[in-house]
Amino acid sequence: MAVAGHVSIVGAGPGDPSLLTRRAVARLRTADLVLYDALVDVVVLRFARRAQKFYVGKRAGRHAVSQDAIHTLMIRAARKGKRVVRLKGGDPFVFGRGGEEALALRAAGVSFDIVPGVTNAVAAPGLAGIPVTHRGTSSGVVIVSGHDEAAFASTVGRLAPNGLTLVILMGIGRSAGLAGRLVDLGWSRATPAAIVADASLPSQRTWYGTLGDLASSRADLDVAQAGTIVVGAVAALQCRVGREGQEANTAARAGNMGRTF
Amino acid sequence: MAVAGHVSIVGAGPGDPSLLTRRAVARLRTADLVLYDALVDVVVLRFARRAQKFYVGKRAGRHAVSQDAIHTLMIRAARKGKRVVRLKGGDPFVFGRGGEEALALRAAGVSFDIVPGVTNAVAAPGLAGIPVTHRGTSSGVVIVSGHDEAAFASTVGRLAPNGLTLVILMGIGRSAGLAGRLVDLGWSRATPAAIVADASLPSQRTWYGTLGDLASSRADLDVAQAGTIVVGAVAALQCRVGREGQEANTAARAGNMGRTF
Repeated sequence: MAVAGHVSIVGAGPGDPSLLTRRAVARLRTADLVLYDALVDVVVLRFARRAQKFYVGKRAGRHAVSQDAIHTLMIRAARKGKRVVRLKGGDPFVFGRGGEEALALRAAGVSFDIVPGVTNAVAAPGLAGIPVTHRGTSSGVVIVSGHDEAAFASTVGRLAPNGLTLVILMGIGRSAGLAGRLVDLGWSRATPAAIVADASLPSQRTWYGTLGDLASSRADLDVAQAGTIVVGAVAALQCRVGREGQEANTAARAGNMGRTF
Repeated sequence: MAVAGHVSIVGAGPGDPSLLTRRAVARLRTADLVLYDALVDVVVLRFARRAQKFYVGKRAGRHAVSQDAIHTLMIRAARKGKRVVRLKGGDPFVFGRGGEEALALRAAGVSFDIVPGVTNAVAAPGLAGIPVTHRGTSSGVVIVSGHDEAAFASTVGRLAPNGLTLVILMGIGRSAGLAGRLVDLGWSRATPAAIVADASLPSQRTWYGTLGDLASSRADLDVAQAGTIVVGAVAALQCRVGREGQEANTAARAGNMGRTF
């Protein structure tokens, strides 16, 4: 069962190629095959000069390739001696199904490694000047997925309302419903909230408001963008930066609340 | 009040220089002054060839330089036109006091940016083959600090016991007490747990066991190492890797439970 190939399950970070790790770049440079997701920005793929590149992403419920088929593709290529990079947006082990792929590779006896990435759960708020924890304001952060509203409700139902920072990935298209669930669970409508879309990319935009605004659909979002929702007092801290390629100064000039899309 | 200098608040990741982002390396290469923390591995500093480097870290309660003094150093240097890198282990906005520094810079009118890093909260488990979320096993992850036992108790008291993945940073020297608090709050002693020490470094070691083992001090740890504690079913998933520089195969060979330090 000796296999010569290898699979690296690699986090690509939020999108800008400068937020790739050096290890991710090294894996891409030597890759024979790259299997990449919807959340990976295409500019990141340029490092993989030698590789065949296949899109296996899914977004908004449409699956280009099934999870089982991804496992089969990886295992088959590795058994042919290929160096495979399985490239995922953010970090592969934060709602990235990286664990399922690692278990499949392990069961198949295929050599693999995990290359952690900069997770959007931390970097998207950070690039908008929002620290997910802050002394005296938030002593913990909870990262959940907004992909499925029922699963979201059951997960956040395990938290006492208010107090902790809540970061919601993959929920930008359902933000009103998700915020409504939180209000139903006892979260204050006055809780500061933010949505960071296309974090790190030139198209990055941040909306600042309250949970009540979100629940009332007052966040006017382009749901085609990938976005991270932050709920908690940290969203009003205004550690926002004023520099090129970072968060827009316009948001700061417009004041803390209201639309900035 | 125009200032020519600039401060970058940069996450250095878990320690291995290959887990720096390309943007972090770029900031270090052009830095005139680097102010770094205890959790930053010294090899990372080699990229800052031109810079003066000052250790301003704190560990186990001993502060080399006060937080206010760090603010003053950054602001003064930036006002002299210097390019300052404030280098922190992991990500600057996950229990890194980066928010306080950003607010101080903003109040002083100093230009700054945030360079997100690979957070130990995700990468330490990941490098040990533990996904912090996993379909059917954990639909959310909570990141807290174990630095202060009372603050820890009040933070985790906001969570329904069991179900979510709990990642505890800065708690390796207090793991028995922290685990005991969780048991008191209703977490099952049978909950899988792991401690990943020196994640990404050649000295990386992982202990796998249960919350009960931790509470009974059966995790035989070297408290001089930096460590990340993971509590939750994901800690038993065994997505562990078998490759050089990654998690040791010895742990897998020794079976899931018991000491591997």
